[in-house]
Amino acid sequence: MSMLSFLLGEKKKTASVAKERLQIILARERVGGNGGGPDYLPALQKELMAVISKYVDIDVNDIKVHLERQENLEVLEVKIELPDAAR
Amino acid sequence: MSMLSFLLGEKKKTASVAKERLQIILARERVGGNGGGPDYLPALQKELMAVISKYVDIDVNDIKVHLERQENLEVLEVKIELPDAAR
Repeated sequence: MSMLSFLLGEKKKTASVAKERLQIILARERVGGNGGGPDYLPALQKELMAVISKYVDIDVNDIKVHLERQENLEVLEVKIELPDAAR
Repeated sequence: MSMLSFLLGEKKKTASVAKERLQIILARERVGGNGGGPDYLPALQKELMAVISKYVDIDVNDIKVHLERQENLEVLEVKIELPDAAR
């Protein structure tokens, strides 16, 4: 299953109101268990949001951030509902 | 199924050599079919790569970019294999 079909499936489950949404997923696969280098995802996420806000108006209340870790995989999900004006 | 379990499944299928990997996925759900505002994903992707290269050394040969569009969903996937020194 491709990433697109996975996200399409997710969309169908959740999308109630037709809104413009942007989702950013950062997945880091470390080598050597949970250690392995600095944890830069949180800092990286902040910088990415700054870049994104150049392209679309972001209201901090419309941002959902979710961080999950399992085995040597760390996934940071940022979901942004965009104001209608962005269309 | 959460994003993490989806990516873990993908990892098991593809991961041959234990390498540090970073995956960035940008998914944009537009309103009103394929139109709806400027197409900023490609430009956004370039800027995101510039930010990421502040955190990890990126060799352009180790980057795979994949863009897919279906219905009103546009998914940009960037997969980066990181040099061992990043660990």
